[in-house]
Amino acid sequence: MNQMLFVINPNSTQAVTDHIDRALEPFRIPAGPRIVCATLASGPPGIETQAHVDGISEKLIAYFDAHPEHARADAVVLACFSDPGFHAMRETLAAPVYGSAECAYLTAAAMVDRFGVISILSRAVPRHKRQVRLMGLEHRLAEDLAIEIGVTGLADEEVTFARMQDVGRTLKERHGARAVIMGCAGMARYRARLEQVLDIPVIDPTQAAVAIALGALLARRAGVAAPARRAA
Amino acid sequence: MNQMLFVINPNSTQAVTDHIDRALEPFRIPAGPRIVCATLASGPPGIETQAHVDGISEKLIAYFDAHPEHARADAVVLACFSDPGFHAMRETLAAPVYGSAECAYLTAAAMVDRFGVISILSRAVPRHKRQVRLMGLEHRLAEDLAIEIGVTGLADEEVTFARMQDVGRTLKERHGARAVIMGCAGMARYRARLEQVLDIPVIDPTQAAVAIALGALLARRAGVAAPARRAA
Amino acid sequence: MNQMLFVINPNSTQAVTDHIDRALEPFRIPAGPRIVCATLASGPPGIETQAHVDGISEKLIAYFDAHPEHARADAVVLACFSDPGFHAMRETLAAPVYGSAECAYLTAAAMVDRFGVISILSRAVPRHKRQVRLMGLEHRLAEDLAIEIGVTGLADEEVTFARMQDVGRTLKERHGARAVIMGCAGMARYRARLEQVLDIPVIDPTQAAVAIALGALLARRAGVAAPARRAA
Amino acid sequence: MNQMLFVINPNSTQAVTDHIDRALEPFRIPAGPRIVCATLASGPPGIETQAHVDGISEKLIAYFDAHPEHARADAVVLACFSDPGFHAMRETLAAPVYGSAECAYLTAAAMVDRFGVISILSRAVPRHKRQVRLMGLEHRLAEDLAIEIGVTGLADEEVTFARMQDVGRTLKERHGARAVIMGCAGMARYRARLEQVLDIPVIDPTQAAVAIALGALLARRAGVAAPARRAA
Amino acid sequence: MNQMLFVINPNSTQAVTDHIDRALEPFRIPAGPRIVCATLASGPPGIETQAHVDGISEKLIAYFDAHPEHARADAVVLACFSDPGFHAMRETLAAPVYGSAECAYLTAAAMVDRFGVISILSRAVPRHKRQVRLMGLEHRLAEDLAIEIGVTGLADEEVTFARMQDVGRTLKERHGARAVIMGCAGMARYRARLEQVLDIPVIDPTQAAVAIALGALLARRAGVAAPARRAA
Amino acid sequence: MNQMLFVINPNSTQAVTDHIDRALEPFRIPAGPRIVCATLASGPPGIETQAHVDGISEKLIAYFDAHPEHARADAVVLACFSDPGFHAMRETLAAPVYGSAECAYLTAAAMVDRFGVISILSRAVPRHKRQVRLMGLEHRLAEDLAIEIGVTGLADEEVTFARMQDVGRTLKERHGARAVIMGCAGMARYRARLEQVLDIPVIDPTQAAVAIALGALLARRAGVAAPARRAA
Repeated sequence: MNQMLFVINPNSTQAVTDHIDRALEPFRIPAGPRIVCATLASGPPGIETQAHVDGISEKLIAYFDAHPEHARADAVVLACFSDPGFHAMRETLAAPVYGSAECAYLTAAAMVDRFGVISILSRAVPRHKRQVRLMGLEHRLAEDLAIEIGVTGLADEEVTFARMQDVGRTLKERHGARAVIMGCAGMARYRARLEQVLDIPVIDPTQAAVAIALGALLARRAGVAAPARRAA
Repeated sequence: MNQMLFVINPNSTQAVTDHIDRALEPFRIPAGPRIVCATLASGPPGIETQAHVDGISEKLIAYFDAHPEHARADAVVLACFSDPGFHAMRETLAAPVYGSAECAYLTAAAMVDRFGVISILSRAVPRHKRQVRLMGLEHRLAEDLAIEIGVTGLADEEVTFARMQDVGRTLKERHGARAVIMGCAGMARYRARLEQVLDIPVIDPTQAAVAIALGALLARRAGVAAPARRAA
Repeated sequence: MNQMLFVINPNSTQAVTDHIDRALEPFRIPAGPRIVCATLASGPPGIETQAHVDGISEKLIAYFDAHPEHARADAVVLACFSDPGFHAMRETLAAPVYGSAECAYLTAAAMVDRFGVISILSRAVPRHKRQVRLMGLEHRLAEDLAIEIGVTGLADEEVTFARMQDVGRTLKERHGARAVIMGCAGMARYRARLEQVLDIPVIDPTQAAVAIALGALLARRAGVAAPARRAA
Repeated sequence: MNQMLFVINPNSTQAVTDHIDRALEPFRIPAGPRIVCATLASGPPGIETQAHVDGISEKLIAYFDAHPEHARADAVVLACFSDPGFHAMRETLAAPVYGSAECAYLTAAAMVDRFGVISILSRAVPRHKRQVRLMGLEHRLAEDLAIEIGVTGLADEEVTFARMQDVGRTLKERHGARAVIMGCAGMARYRARLEQVLDIPVIDPTQAAVAIALGALLARRAGVAAPARRAA
Repeated sequence: MNQMLFVINPNSTQAVTDHIDRALEPFRIPAGPRIVCATLASGPPGIETQAHVDGISEKLIAYFDAHPEHARADAVVLACFSDPGFHAMRETLAAPVYGSAECAYLTAAAMVDRFGVISILSRAVPRHKRQVRLMGLEHRLAEDLAIEIGVTGLADEEVTFARMQDVGRTLKERHGARAVIMGCAGMARYRARLEQVLDIPVIDPTQAAVAIALGALLARRAGVAAPARRAA
Repeated sequence: MNQMLFVINPNSTQAVTDHIDRALEPFRIPAGPRIVCATLASGPPGIETQAHVDGISEKLIAYFDAHPEHARADAVVLACFSDPGFHAMRETLAAPVYGSAECAYLTAAAMVDRFGVISILSRAVPRHKRQVRLMGLEHRLAEDLAIEIGVTGLADEEVTFARMQDVGRTLKERHGARAVIMGCAGMARYRARLEQVLDIPVIDPTQAAVAIALGALLARRAGVAAPARRAA
């Protein structure tokens, strides 16, 4: 079988793509769709502003023009919590497109009554809340709080993780979150540890989107096989 | 690895469980979680009334009391579009519980702007709409229309599929649905054919729930592995 | 006149039915509908979990099958703040069915701008809030707070009433409630005292439902008489 | 016992008050609260415009200044579907104030999933919809349609009732209303006949408000008696 | 050109009209619409209660009956944050009517994500919140807080301004308001000073309404001229 | 006085900028802010896709970097109904930024109960509806309908205007719109004629945004002058 699930990290930081790629390892199943992760070299090192978010659309389209083999993927996942270029991709690509923030919110809603979000910078919080409102999930969002660490600070894993713990605990204990979404694809490496410490589900947006995309691809196989069986 | 994903069909019709089981075949991946489907023998042959829906809770709890090996599953999926016993399961089981209607709605929302639902009987539509309202997705629901075929009529595959096509086309063409949810776990066998005819994604609720549950289980593996890597 | 208003306490605790019965005494008006209160002997002693709530539906249907004289009532009131079996009753009985939680919320909304709820256990609060959301009254709910006393503790009237006062005052003073709903049919006996202490309306759910049901029955009499008068 | 429930018809048409008074006859129960209906002589013959609605507030306050015995009522019901002066009364009177439109909407919501409204003139419909939105019940309103008969036309009972039937049937059959509210206090006399023809509950706003007000007064009696009993 | 924009202060305090008039000075542009401010002599000195609000409708209609030259204005602005008589005016006058509260909320929403309101008395806050809900802007309202100064207290500019500063700072710092609406037409004189102190936009409701009304009048001129140009 | 109100047309079609410029002529008032219109030469000829919308952000930022005299404007208006780059501008510029779609919706809401939108292509309608939802104005939108004319077709004024009339009439007569928004900055030249034909207000988005921006600038002048007067 030749299905391909293509994951694009819209920032240009290869290390982030590597962490994402590693977090997706368990989704690479024997005889399952290939999961290919790529870095948008033309993207900014980190997507921190609305201008960054908006600017991704054209870069993604150029990318897919230059990489027709990826444009022909069976599913495309945007691996960034701002879902940059999401609606533009939907308008442009034939393949189904999954936004990792949208899928993270929906997965959290499928798992628990109320969930929280750990953001990098509080500047992003109004942007996140606009998306939550668009989806109709405001009543499920316990709160969205930032660790307030800049790009350079993120290199310090110890400090970063300590802040994620603090914010996660506040979301759980003060705001009643029963699951926590990590509001940045670059946090992928902390998921397991954070879940252990907080003792509630911790959702990595890229994994959430890949799970839903993978599910749709697998479901299609059942579909293909089914008529044959019925014919028997 | 010994993860188990347990799927319970809360009606007592083994044929429905068999169809569900077959539809989940592609989700059984090498070295992946075992996916075990069972029939709630104490359930009604079909879940058609609110009393049926409500009555499932106690029967499910009794089932899990009698089958501690299933109660210890790593994830439990309720394979019925009415999500009977959903909140009761959440209160009772240690395992995460996924409702197939909830997951179908959320998956549809992750895939398209507006989706429709094909129901069995229009009597169920107000119940469905209450759930959609609870979730905040009213603005994404194009419409929910019934094929109006009773339990016995469903045995006639030709008539059933013809009605599903009609309703599906109406949802797509008149109501602007860009994907369609099959509003009954017993419709699993028609997914592929219907998708081919309608040419928009057709979502089987049990597959949608299993995909999200499977994703969470797989994600956890990435988590387990990650610290080792970091330690290296 | 032979109208009957039937009130069913879906838990098996006769003492609760007795308190309800006493609270309904003033609604028994000369030549008015008979108000008959009964205990669902097959119910649990207290309805504390979602499984309890859901399990009531089938028991109620069995009850009405065995008591056709009650099934023929002119109105049926469910005397439990969880409105267990509400939608199932509506699907099953010819008689109009009134839920006491629903009627309590609506009555509170008719009386004041914002109201609070005194719950038994905080475990029930998410369940209550789901119902308030379904009804569209979220903006009228000041807050829903629990006294956190278990079934056995409720026997101690002094402690129970003290906690109800505390929670009631918090709802009034900190959350701006202008009326308070007692979130359990078993609290009926405290209504008058609590109202005196809090100095805002205190609503007993069963009384609220009986008042609306009684109103509909009385209205019907006006209707019957009216044409005769017009003919004169 | 000396409770008084005071009903004020804010238009100056005594015939409307008479019809209201007759419709309330069954709510006058032995040893129950006196139900006193009065006409606001200073009001307009019919309340048809927003200016009429707004102008009622000051006239009502003047009325209660001049009639302190009515201002001391145990409950006040505004018998007009526009609820004119409702918030002003609440700010001014010590007595609890019930709006008949608000109580009609809430009673309908307690009785059925979706309800319709029969209005006099379509000019009033946006005003009604603003109130429904304020209350949060938009999702329960099937539709609000007018019979489009002016004040003089209303004198012709035959034409009026024929139009009410037509509109009622449209609300039921095309819009899925399961109960119908008569959107004018002056329609009181048609309730019984209309209910018979439509075969779904027909709600008279004044009766709805009086039922809730009466319920609160009766409940209070249970309250007064209760401690004595407990002391025994 | 003879356009007239008519601004009516519905309270009878000429000093308030004078302050409004001065605040509108910059909107009087050469060859632009005349901006005429008038005092409703029949109004109360201050509009503080719901009865005051409601009572304005008839007085305004009487005013416009007596002043046909104002009724023929090209636009009418109600210069009071309670928008008294707004819907009545819309039903009555041929001219477009602008409510200053509505325009203040909408202007704030056009300027920033979240805004606050400084009210005179907390008694008015529920009334304000009803209007915000009607408009659908609840998610944009940071908070509405009162300075709690009575009519006589307002004469003391120093105390009044100090309280406005305090409340404004609380709205900005604790509630995240990015702009502040002055919730009373009588606060016009403090706008500039308050904006300087708070360092976020401060919106005067009358100015907001006049700006939108003026815009519509100016736009119409472009319209008239345009065809001529196109004809050339 | 040296205030400048800067209007940027984010598409590269100078003819559109010229029409906008002409439509803003009446807003150029003696001694008022200069109103400067510019064309984003780096933009696409027309903004028709989501990718176009998103791509504008970076181009706008580059534009303002290259034109510091415009970045220092006292207010910036985005003259495109898709509000491209709106949030990015808000994050980047010190000047207040006004979106023309947002201001058109808000102005329409200030003028009438329900309004419609005339769009170019139905492809844009879901994008428009997302914005309306974000603003909370869904209940005010009668409908959004497209004339379905491509860029080249728009050159044919006769056909374009005929379609705008048709759609406008449908919005008014079938959907109850009381005002109509022209959903494209390029429609500016048709405003007057369309208003004459439809006989309800027709709103040009750029004019709406300029009116609100101008109002804020003028208001500021009153502010500056006021203290001096008070000191006198």
